[in-house]
Amino acid sequence: PRIQPNYTKSRHGEIELQWPAGSRPRNIMFVKKPGVQVTRDALVEFAEHITTTYPETNIILEPTVAASLHHRLSKPVYTLPPPNQHSSPFPFTQSPDARTPYHFATDEPTSPPISPASPDPTQPFFARNLYQTYADAVITLGGDGTILYAASLFSTTTSVPPFLTFAMGTLGFLGTHKYSTYESAFRSLYTAATASSAPLQVLPRHRLSAVSSSGHQLNAMNELTLHRGQTPHLAHIDIEVNGHLLTEAVADGIIISTPTGSTAYSLSSGGCILHPSVGSLLLTPICPRSLSFRPLVLPRDVEILVRLSRRSRGNGVEVSVDGRTWGTMAVGEEVRVRLEGGGGHALGTGEIENSGIGMLGIPCVKREGGEDAWVGGLNRLLKFNYAFGEEME
Amino acid sequence: PRIQPNYTKSRHGEIELQWPAGSRPRNIMFVKKPGVQVTRDALVEFAEHITTTYPETNIILEPTVAASLHHRLSKPVYTLPPPNQHSSPFPFTQSPDARTPYHFATDEPTSPPISPASPDPTQPFFARNLYQTYADAVITLGGDGTILYAASLFSTTTSVPPFLTFAMGTLGFLGTHKYSTYESAFRSLYTAATASSAPLQVLPRHRLSAVSSSGHQLNAMNELTLHRGQTPHLAHIDIEVNGHLLTEAVADGIIISTPTGSTAYSLSSGGCILHPSVGSLLLTPICPRSLSFRPLVLPRDVEILVRLSRRSRGNGVEVSVDGRTWGTMAVGEEVRVRLEGGGGHALGTGEIENSGIGMLGIPCVKREGGEDAWVGGLNRLLKFNYAFGEEME
Amino acid sequence: PRIQPNYTKSRHGEIELQWPAGSRPRNIMFVKKPGVQVTRDALVEFAEHITTTYPETNIILEPTVAASLHHRLSKPVYTLPPPNQHSSPFPFTQSPDARTPYHFATDEPTSPPISPASPDPTQPFFARNLYQTYADAVITLGGDGTILYAASLFSTTTSVPPFLTFAMGTLGFLGTHKYSTYESAFRSLYTAATASSAPLQVLPRHRLSAVSSSGHQLNAMNELTLHRGQTPHLAHIDIEVNGHLLTEAVADGIIISTPTGSTAYSLSSGGCILHPSVGSLLLTPICPRSLSFRPLVLPRDVEILVRLSRRSRGNGVEVSVDGRTWGTMAVGEEVRVRLEGGGGHALGTGEIENSGIGMLGIPCVKREGGEDAWVGGLNRLLKFNYAFGEEME
Amino acid sequence: PRIQPNYTKSRHGEIELQWPAGSRPRNIMFVKKPGVQVTRDALVEFAEHITTTYPETNIILEPTVAASLHHRLSKPVYTLPPPNQHSSPFPFTQSPDARTPYHFATDEPTSPPISPASPDPTQPFFARNLYQTYADAVITLGGDGTILYAASLFSTTTSVPPFLTFAMGTLGFLGTHKYSTYESAFRSLYTAATASSAPLQVLPRHRLSAVSSSGHQLNAMNELTLHRGQTPHLAHIDIEVNGHLLTEAVADGIIISTPTGSTAYSLSSGGCILHPSVGSLLLTPICPRSLSFRPLVLPRDVEILVRLSRRSRGNGVEVSVDGRTWGTMAVGEEVRVRLEGGGGHALGTGEIENSGIGMLGIPCVKREGGEDAWVGGLNRLLKFNYAFGEEME
Ligand SMILES: NC(=O)C1=CN([C@@H]2O[C@H](COP(=O)(O)OP(=O)(O)OC[C@H]3O[C@@H](n4cnc5c(N)ncnc54)[C@H](O)[C@@H]3O)[C@@H](O)[C@H]2O)C=CC1
Ligand SMILES: NC(=O)C1=CN([C@@H]2O[C@H](COP(=O)(O)OP(=O)(O)OC[C@H]3O[C@@H](n4cnc5c(N)ncnc54)[C@H](O)[C@@H]3O)[C@@H](O)[C@H]2O)C=CC1
Ligand SMILES: NC(=O)C1=CN([C@@H]2O[C@H](COP(=O)(O)OP(=O)(O)OC[C@H]3O[C@@H](n4cnc5c(N)ncnc54)[C@H](O)[C@@H]3O)[C@@H](O)[C@H]2O)C=CC1
Ligand SMILES: NC(=O)C1=CN([C@@H]2O[C@H](COP(=O)(O)OP(=O)(O)OC[C@H]3O[C@@H](n4cnc5c(N)ncnc54)[C@H](O)[C@@H]3O)[C@@H](O)[C@H]2O)C=CC1
Repeated sequence: PRIQPNYTKSRHGEIELQWPAGSRPRNIMFVKKPGVQVTRDALVEFAEHITTTYPETNIILEPTVAASLHHRLSKPVYTLPPPNQHSSPFPFTQSPDARTPYHFATDEPTSPPISPASPDPTQPFFARNLYQTYADAVITLGGDGTILYAASLFSTTTSVPPFLTFAMGTLGFLGTHKYSTYESAFRSLYTAATASSAPLQVLPRHRLSAVSSSGHQLNAMNELTLHRGQTPHLAHIDIEVNGHLLTEAVADGIIISTPTGSTAYSLSSGGCILHPSVGSLLLTPICPRSLSFRPLVLPRDVEILVRLSRRSRGNGVEVSVDGRTWGTMAVGEEVRVRLEGGGGHALGTGEIENSGIGMLGIPCVKREGGEDAWVGGLNRLLKFNYAFGEEME
Repeated sequence: PRIQPNYTKSRHGEIELQWPAGSRPRNIMFVKKPGVQVTRDALVEFAEHITTTYPETNIILEPTVAASLHHRLSKPVYTLPPPNQHSSPFPFTQSPDARTPYHFATDEPTSPPISPASPDPTQPFFARNLYQTYADAVITLGGDGTILYAASLFSTTTSVPPFLTFAMGTLGFLGTHKYSTYESAFRSLYTAATASSAPLQVLPRHRLSAVSSSGHQLNAMNELTLHRGQTPHLAHIDIEVNGHLLTEAVADGIIISTPTGSTAYSLSSGGCILHPSVGSLLLTPICPRSLSFRPLVLPRDVEILVRLSRRSRGNGVEVSVDGRTWGTMAVGEEVRVRLEGGGGHALGTGEIENSGIGMLGIPCVKREGGEDAWVGGLNRLLKFNYAFGEEME
Repeated sequence: PRIQPNYTKSRHGEIELQWPAGSRPRNIMFVKKPGVQVTRDALVEFAEHITTTYPETNIILEPTVAASLHHRLSKPVYTLPPPNQHSSPFPFTQSPDARTPYHFATDEPTSPPISPASPDPTQPFFARNLYQTYADAVITLGGDGTILYAASLFSTTTSVPPFLTFAMGTLGFLGTHKYSTYESAFRSLYTAATASSAPLQVLPRHRLSAVSSSGHQLNAMNELTLHRGQTPHLAHIDIEVNGHLLTEAVADGIIISTPTGSTAYSLSSGGCILHPSVGSLLLTPICPRSLSFRPLVLPRDVEILVRLSRRSRGNGVEVSVDGRTWGTMAVGEEVRVRLEGGGGHALGTGEIENSGIGMLGIPCVKREGGEDAWVGGLNRLLKFNYAFGEEME
Repeated sequence: PRIQPNYTKSRHGEIELQWPAGSRPRNIMFVKKPGVQVTRDALVEFAEHITTTYPETNIILEPTVAASLHHRLSKPVYTLPPPNQHSSPFPFTQSPDARTPYHFATDEPTSPPISPASPDPTQPFFARNLYQTYADAVITLGGDGTILYAASLFSTTTSVPPFLTFAMGTLGFLGTHKYSTYESAFRSLYTAATASSAPLQVLPRHRLSAVSSSGHQLNAMNELTLHRGQTPHLAHIDIEVNGHLLTEAVADGIIISTPTGSTAYSLSSGGCILHPSVGSLLLTPICPRSLSFRPLVLPRDVEILVRLSRRSRGNGVEVSVDGRTWGTMAVGEEVRVRLEGGGGHALGTGEIENSGIGMLGIPCVKREGGEDAWVGGLNRLLKFNYAFGEEME
C-alpha cells in the first residue's frame, strides 16, 4: 500500500530519490518533539499547508498528537486508536473537539491508510507496523532525539520511507532543514521525479540490525549498547567477529555503532568519527579495564556477536538501542549485529534500488544546494578541531 | 608481458585469485630484508626450490641482491644493471663469480623479462616500471618494513602482482606466512586455478593515491604523512574534503592513512583501527593544538586535499609516504589524496576484476585455512585490549 | 586506646614508621577476601603464628569471619556481636563450636579491645568506630578489592592504623607483600622502632574526603564517582573549584580520584596515571558529550564541589565511593571533596607526624628492599607501554 | 646587587611577595614581542610612565630593542653592547640618535646595572647572567612565546625576579594582565610591602631542571622534549625514575613537562592538564608505538633520566627546551630532569622564602581581584569541555 520511491546512484556518487512514474506521496506522517509549543504550532502550520496545497495527501499522526492537535486542523487526520492509559508511555488526555471530530481510522472506510480491523491497536509493535505500511514520507520537527524516536517507529521494517527532518529552534546533528524553508523543502520531495530539474538527493543513513538469541530483531540508527547499568561490577563481554573470538571486554560496556551513531555515545566514549556514508560498523568500549582497547572499524559484511561472559558477576547487562532500553542480557544470551544490508554489495553507479532490501537504511532528504551538512555539523555542533586560544582581548 | 590473474568475489565475500586458463606465473620476484643472514639463506633455498620444481619459472632480484647472491644460485637470475655508485641508495659491491656468471638482462636475448634496451636503467622510476612490467608474483622475506619496501617498487602502477609474504624470525603485522611452509604456500599460488579444490584467497590491501600539485603521483600502502619535521613551529595545514574546507590543522602534522596503515603511524597518533578490507580513508592529526580534533573515517569516494596554510611559518612541511620522504611542501603547494579505485563501485559478488583499474590495491595471498590473521595480529602483536593484572604470584 | 605510631620523613623523602618508645602493636585486625579457601587457611596460619610468637597480641576479626574460623584458632579472637540477619550485608551462618567457644567482646572484661557496652553493635558505622578505636595494625589477605574493603572500615576516621597487605594467589595493584614472606613481614612491622636497623617505610596513600550537603562525611581510597546509573539520560553536573564554577559536565558521570585511584576507574575513563605519593586530586569525566574534556590534576589544597545541575533530567545521579554506593544525589544537593589533610602543608624532612590529622591517608607498609612496587605494578599489571609486535615466530 | 623580594605563604595557601623593608625594585627589565608595532608603542609608553612616576628606577632592554627604541625614550636605558652581527640571532640594525645617545652600560660609571668590564658581552650565556644579576622585575609585553622567551633569559639561574606579564591584542594562556591596566598593575608591584593593604599574590610557576651528561644545565618553564626530528625512524628512549628503569619508549619522542607546560605540547600529545601549582612532573609520550603508554604524573622529588637506547637507529634525537633546540642526544648520552627545588619540602604556611633556592620557579604576579586565571584560560582559550551542539538556528 505504501508508495516506494526508486533510488539511483548518480555518477557523482549521490543517491537520488524519485517517485515511480505517475505516483506521488499520499500519506505524510509527522513526528514532533513533545511538550514544546513551537513544534506544535509548526506542525499545524505545516500540515495545513500540505493538505491545502496538495489536496490528495493525508496526514498521519501518533494518537496523542492527533488527540491534542486534530481540532486545530481543517482536515481529518489519521491515527491509531488511543492506546490504553496503562500501556501508553505518555499520559494521554483526550480532549475531543465538537467542531472537528477526532478522526480515527474508522472514519475513512474506503482505502483507509490505517486499517480499522486492527486486532489490538494498543500494541506498540503492531502500531509500528501500521506506520510502516502506510506512511509514504516522514517529517520530523525537533532535534536528534525526535529523529531517533521517529526512526524507532520503523525499527522493525527493512524498508523505511524517506525522512524530511526539520530543526526547530536548536540545531541537532542529524536534522538538516531549517523550518523556515518548509514549503520549498516539501515541494522538492513531493515533486521528485525523473523529469525534475533538481534531482532529490538523499543520505542513506545505514542502520545496524540486531538479533537477540531469543529471536527478537531490531534495527538501530545510532547504536546498540551493552552497559553494566547500576551493577557496580564490571561487565565481562565476549565479542566474536564472524564466528572467531575477537576479545573479551571487561568494561562498563561496549557500543556497536553505525556511522551515524559515531557522533553519539561512541564519540563520548572515545570513538572516532565516521562519515555517515561509510559502510562500516564501529566497536567502541565504554571505560574498559585495559589501556589498549582502541575503537575498531569493521567492514560491511561482518557479523558481530556479543555475549555475556561466564566470568561476569552480577545480574546481566543492560542492552539498549538508540538510547532506549531493549532488555537485560543474562549469561548465556547473546545478540548478533550486522550492518543492515551489509551482506549484499554496495550500490553501483546507475543501479536502481527499490526492492526494499534495506541497503538504504533511513533515507534522509538532503538540504538542497547545501554544503556537506556533515562538515558543517562537525564544525558548528561538535566544535571539531576548535583551535586554541589567541582570543582577542 | 606480465600475466594478470583474475580476481572474483565469492559468495562469502572472499576475493579469489586464479591464473587465466593455461597460464602460470613465470617471473617470480623476491624482495628480502637487507643485512640479515637468515633472509639471505632463505632466499637461496626458496629460489632453488622454485627453479628446480617449476623449471619454466625465472627469478627476478634487485641488483644488489643479485650481485651478492647469484653465485649461490644454480640458475641465472634476472635483474637490472647495477645502478651507478652515486645514484644508488645502498653501497653496491659487485663480487662476480667465475662459476655462475652474473646475469644481467642482456644475457637473456630471447624474451628477456627485463629489456636490455633500457635508456637509463639507473633511474629508480624506470627500474620500478621494469619490475611492474615483468613480475608475475612478488615474494617478500622479512618484516613489515620489507613488505612496505616491496610495495614501494610498485607505487607508480595501478596493477600490482600478487604478494606472498613470509615472516622471518619475528612476526610483523602485515606478513602472513611462516617461512617453514614456503613449499606448500608457493604451490598454492602457482597452481591457483578454477579447477583447484582450494581457491586462493587474497586480501586486497587498499592503497591511497596521492597527486602533488607538481604533477607527481604515488600510491601508498600505509599512509601519506605531513610533518613539521625539524621545524620547531607548528604546521598549519588546510584540509579540504571534496572541495569544501573541512578544517585547518595546527599540529605537528597529519596522517592520511589506508585501512592497512591504521595500525601503523596513525595508531601511535591516537587513530582507531580499521579492518584492512574497510574501503575508507582515515585522517589522523599528529599532536594537534586542539582538544577536539578526533580522527575521521571518510568514505571511499572522497578526495582529500591538503595544503600548507598561508598562516604557516617556517620552511614548509615534510611529506612522506609509507615512512619514506617524498619531498617538502611549501606554501601554495598541495597534495590530493583518494582511495585508489575509490571512484568506482566496490566489487559485487561474482564480478570479475582483471582490468587492473586498481581496486585491489596490493593483493596479498592469505594463509590457507588460517583464522583471520588480522584478529590474530591485533591480539598478539598490538596487544589489543590486554586485560589488567591479576597475574599469578 | 590504640597505639599510634610516629611517622618521620627521612632525608631521602621516605616516610618511616616507628612505634612509640616501649610500645608494640597489641591488637591486630585481619581482613580477608571472602569465599576463598586459600585466604581462610592463610588467616588461620598467620594468626596462629602471631599469637604464638608474640603472645601479648590479640586478633580482631569481623563477626562472620570470627564465626567461621574461631574454632580453628587456639586463642580466643575478638569481634563484634554478630549483626542481625537483616542488617548484615553478607549471609551469616553461625556455627558455634563447643570446644573453642566463640568469643564475643564480652569474654574479655578487662581492657577489652572492643567494648561490651556497645549500644547497638549491628550499626555498621558504630562497628567501624570500634575497629578504628582498637586496631593497632591491619593485615589484609586478598586482592585490591579486599584492601578497598578494609579501607572502608576506616572511612570515617582521620587516623588509620598501618596496613600490611598480602596478595594471595593473584597479584593486585595495591597489594605489596607475597604471602610466603608473612613471618618476616610481620616481624618488621612489630619491631619497627628507632633502634631498628632497617627503618620501616610506609607509602601514605592519600585519601580524599567527601562531605555531602546532608552532612555525611566519608574518606575514599580510590575515588568518588557520580554516574547516571541506569538513567538513560546524560547527567548534567556542575563542578566548582574553590568556589568558582569550573565547568558543567554533560556526561555519563565524573570521577574525583586520589592518586591511588588513578589506576582504577579513572584509568578506564581515560585518565592519566599519578604516582601514589603525588599530593593531588584527579578529575576525570566518564563519557562526556564534549570532545575537549581532558582530565585535570588539581593541587592539594583545592576544594571541589559537585552539584547536579538544574538542567538535569531524570532522578538524580548515583554517588559511589570506592565502588560502593553511597547514595543518590538529587538536584540541589551537592558534595564537597578535598584531599584529606590537603589544607595543611606537606610533611617536611625530619618532621614528625603523630597527631592523626590525616595527612598520611592509609599508611601502607612497603615491601622491604623491594624496587618501587608502583613501577612494577605499572609494567606487570597494567601492561603499561606494552611494545608492539615483533614477537618471535 | 639585585633586590630579592621575600615570599610568604598565607593562611589561604597564597604565595605573597613583599620587598625587603626600605627597598623598592630599581632596575626594571622589559621584554616584548618582536616585529609588532603595538608592543613597541606599549613599551615606550610604559617605560616613560615608570621613569617619570618612579624616578629612581632604571629600564633594562635587550640590545636590539634598546637600539630601535632608545631615541623614543626620555631617559637613557641600560643594555648590553650590541652582539656581533654574526653571533646575533636576529639581524641587528643600529640607528644611533644624536639627540638621545644610545647608552651602553659604560655610560653609567657609578653603580652600573650592567658591568662595563664584561669580557665578552656577545656571549649569550654571559648576557643572561647580567640580566639575572641586575633585573629586579621583568615585564613582558606579548603572548606566551614572549613569556617563554623572557623565561629563557633566566634559564640558568635558580632565582628569578618576579614577572609581570601583559597580553597584547591576543590573549595567551600564560599572560595575565590586560595592557590597559598597566599603571595600577605596576604600582601594585612597586609598592608591595607588609604594610600594603592588598598583599601581592604571585603564582610560582615551577620549572624543571635538566642536566645533560655533558654537564650543561638549564631550567625550563614548559618542558624538555626529545623528538626524532627529521629522522624517519622511531626513537628508542630509556626512561629511568629514581634509578630504576621505568620503560623504554619507542615513539616519535617524549615530553617531560612542568605543570605550566601541561597545557602546551604535552596537551597536544594527549597529556592531562595540571594546575600550575601542582608540584609534579608530567611524562607524556609523543606518538608511541604502544597502545598503553598513558601519561604519568610523578611526585616532586623524583629524578627522571632519559637516555637514547642502544636499540635506536639513526643519528640521535633532538632535545629541545621550551620549544628551543638544546642539542642532539646521541646513544650513550643522557639527561637528568628534576622539578626545580623538588628535593626540598613544599613551603609551609607562614614560612618565608627568600633564599633563592629555586622553589618558586618563575614568580608570576597574579591579576588583582581576578578569578582564577587558570580556570578562565581553560575555558576561554583551550575551549575546555566545549559542550556539543544545540546551537540556535
Ligand atoms: N554519555 C553519552 O554520551 C551518552 C549518549 N547517549 C546517546 O543518546 C542517544 C539517544 O538520544 P536521546 O534519546 O535524544 O537522548 P538525549 O536527549 O539525552 O540526547 C543525547 C544527545 O546526543 C545527541 N545525539 C543523538 N544522536 C546523535 C548523533 N547521531 N550524532 C550526534 N549527536 C547525537 C543529541 O543531540 C543529544 O545532545 C543514544 O542513541 C546515545 O547515542 C546515551 C547515553 C549516554
Ligand atoms: N611514531 C610512529 O609510530 C611512527 C611510525 N612510522 C611508521 O613506520 C612506517 C614505515 O615503516 P619502516 O620503514 O619499516 O620503519 P620502521 O622500521 O621504523 O618500522 C615502524 C614500525 O611500524 C610497524 N608497521 C609498519 N607498517 C605497519 C602496519 N601497517 N601495521 C602495523 N604495524 C606496522 C613495523 O612493524 C615497525 O614496528 C610508516 O609507514 C609509518 O606508518 C613512521 C614514523 C613514526
Ligand atoms: N569501568 C571500570 O573500570 C570500573 C572500575 N571500578 C573500580 O572498581 C573499584 C572497586 O573495586 P572492587 O570493589 O574490587 O570491584 P571489582 O572486583 O569489580 O574490581 C575492579 C578492578 O579494579 C582493580 N582495582 C581496584 N582499585 C585499583 C587501584 N587503585 N589501582 C589499580 N587497580 C585497581 C581491581 O584489582 C579489579 O581488577 C572502584 O573503586 C573503581 O575504581 C568500578 C566500576 C567500573
Ligand atoms: N604540536 C605541538 O603542540 C607543539 C607545541 N610546541 C610548544 O610550543 C612551545 C614554544 O612556544 P613558542 O616558541 O611560542 O612557539 P609557537 O609560537 O609555535 O607557539 C606554540 C603555541 O603554544 C602556546 N603555548 C605555549 N606555552 C603554553 C602553555 N604553557 N600553555 C598553553 N599554551 C602554551 C602558544 O600560545 C602558542 O599558541 C613549546 O614549549 C611547546 O610546548 C612546540 C612544538 C609542537
